[in-house]
Amino acid sequence: MSRFLCEKYKELIPYTPGEQPRGGRIIKLNTNESPFPPSEKAIKKAAEAAKRLNLYPDPECRELRESMAKLYNVSSENVLMTNGSDEILNFAFMAFCSDKTGAAFPDITYGFYKVFADINNICYTEIPLDDKLCIRREDYFGINKTVFIANPNAPTGIALKIGDIEDIIKNNPENVVVIDEAYIDFGGESAVSLIDKYENLLVTMTFSKSRSMAGARLGAGIASKGLIEDLDLIKYSTNPYNINSMTMAAGIGALSDGQYTKANAETIKNNREYTKNELIKAGFSVIPSDANFVFAKHNDISGEKLYQELKKRGILVRHFAKERIKDYNRITIGTREQMEEFIKTTKTVLEENI
Amino acid sequence: MSRFLCEKYKELIPYTPGEQPRGGRIIKLNTNESPFPPSEKAIKKAAEAAKRLNLYPDPECRELRESMAKLYNVSSENVLMTNGSDEILNFAFMAFCSDKTGAAFPDITYGFYKVFADINNICYTEIPLDDKLCIRREDYFGINKTVFIANPNAPTGIALKIGDIEDIIKNNPENVVVIDEAYIDFGGESAVSLIDKYENLLVTMTFSKSRSMAGARLGAGIASKGLIEDLDLIKYSTNPYNINSMTMAAGIGALSDGQYTKANAETIKNNREYTKNELIKAGFSVIPSDANFVFAKHNDISGEKLYQELKKRGILVRHFAKERIKDYNRITIGTREQMEEFIKTTKTVLEENI
Repeated sequence: MSRFLCEKYKELIPYTPGEQPRGGRIIKLNTNESPFPPSEKAIKKAAEAAKRLNLYPDPECRELRESMAKLYNVSSENVLMTNGSDEILNFAFMAFCSDKTGAAFPDITYGFYKVFADINNICYTEIPLDDKLCIRREDYFGINKTVFIANPNAPTGIALKIGDIEDIIKNNPENVVVIDEAYIDFGGESAVSLIDKYENLLVTMTFSKSRSMAGARLGAGIASKGLIEDLDLIKYSTNPYNINSMTMAAGIGALSDGQYTKANAETIKNNREYTKNELIKAGFSVIPSDANFVFAKHNDISGEKLYQELKKRGILVRHFAKERIKDYNRITIGTREQMEEFIKTTKTVLEENI
Repeated sequence: MSRFLCEKYKELIPYTPGEQPRGGRIIKLNTNESPFPPSEKAIKKAAEAAKRLNLYPDPECRELRESMAKLYNVSSENVLMTNGSDEILNFAFMAFCSDKTGAAFPDITYGFYKVFADINNICYTEIPLDDKLCIRREDYFGINKTVFIANPNAPTGIALKIGDIEDIIKNNPENVVVIDEAYIDFGGESAVSLIDKYENLLVTMTFSKSRSMAGARLGAGIASKGLIEDLDLIKYSTNPYNINSMTMAAGIGALSDGQYTKANAETIKNNREYTKNELIKAGFSVIPSDANFVFAKHNDISGEKLYQELKKRGILVRHFAKERIKDYNRITIGTREQMEEFIKTTKTVLEENI
């Protein structure tokens, strides 16, 4: 830190992304990536776009927004594309939370919400999940803050029913409700169908998970025209060309290959069932997940110890040191072969450490 | 605008990027893009990276930062890569300007500085260029604000001498001085050589101009380790994976092909001389430029009129409505063929309108 840094950032604790090891034979189950390559159509379109990089990308992302609008049955005025969904989440904290209107989100959720609030100097309330690590919808009724809910939630994987989501939106007519649907393609029901009904709803999405494009950095928001205009104002005041041409092209390619996305999501769901069942057989408690990961703990080995022992053996999972969930590990669902290897190694760790 | 937008953004005027027409036969001389495709090495590396998009990019950009460090003869601790140079400029406004420490920049310069200041609620002083549209270094001595200087400046194209830049840095020891070197490869001398000497110097760069990668969105900052740590804190608190894998790969490819970059910059400089001379012959005043554009005016036709007439004829240049420079147009330097066509069309416009 230099002596020139603004006073207000001096205590800021940034987000810690999952480890990104380079090289070596590692089974990487720590950042909820897809184990499958992107669609051939995405790869081809991106490679084509690489040849024309001398020109700026279309700041309005017209073609990609139109593809999104068609797929989600909305108008392109309802769509904003961003540099990963982290960008649209940050924009939403900026646009819709103020000193007066703070933010509210669960105590156990995507760890970045807190950081977005901190950097934008927004006060926030962390609302405890219940004993089963579920969101209680009533806790959010009339809360008079901008609400951020990941659905399915992370790192638990638990999804709220669409009716519960609607009740939260309905009971906060004076505040924006942001539903972060990064994992929706693996379970749960999207709230996009409610966009026309509620002007205070913003649904955020990512191409990083079901569409195998974490490396491309592509996120999206779907909302009423007014909210999109607000977010667009932030975009045009910070980074109008936020999406590069290759990512834009890859996104268009991926959207044209819905079959591939669906098939991969189905495979992940099957592998999730396999993983869950095997973990239960090995004595784990596993939270029922609607996402591309499971959250599991074992009474006879600490979360930290299991994480370390797996890491020694070339398998990376994600452990969070936070008190309420420190017994757990979040395990991304990979290919069947990866999950078999993970189960085998986990059993070895248990044998050697219990 | 929705009723949910924070009060503080309600008066915000966003940046207006140059027009990005799609389709049609247009000679595009309005956004200072390179007329040459990116390096073959960049294209190849980006296409390779597209196949592995399912994995997150390296948030630390290690390989690219090392390439940059080697090229600019600094350590990788002195380098930060960003999603275009707009991102690092925004980070610098966030990190180094506060309510107390405002910003200072010329009245005629990159129009985004003002917007960055506005969105971050930073007060700023616009320091008038002299009568020849030059920066007077003395105006910035001991100004007690964070200084932003584009060198060469835009849209004038005039570069300050490195000694003048050093004097500005030296005379602001308590404040950061940001030198925005987007156009440095076309003239002027880089301030990177001063990094080790001044802990308050940040040099920002872009791959959009001389490296033909506007579509890839790649910017960089070079500074003392402390300033880079500060900017990194902002990055990790807003968007840790700010650079996608394809852009990162393309950047590494482009840096490995320095010959190509240099040869293209030489061609642009030659075409700039040609364009300047032809414009002068046609009665224009042309400011001596060190960038990949020229700024020119004609006594017998208004800037606005010339812009419109050229546009009608399929040539886009950039006109700024701002009072002090409204007689001018900024003309990006393209290929020799494009500039010949531009000169020919300009002469026709003059004949028909004077």
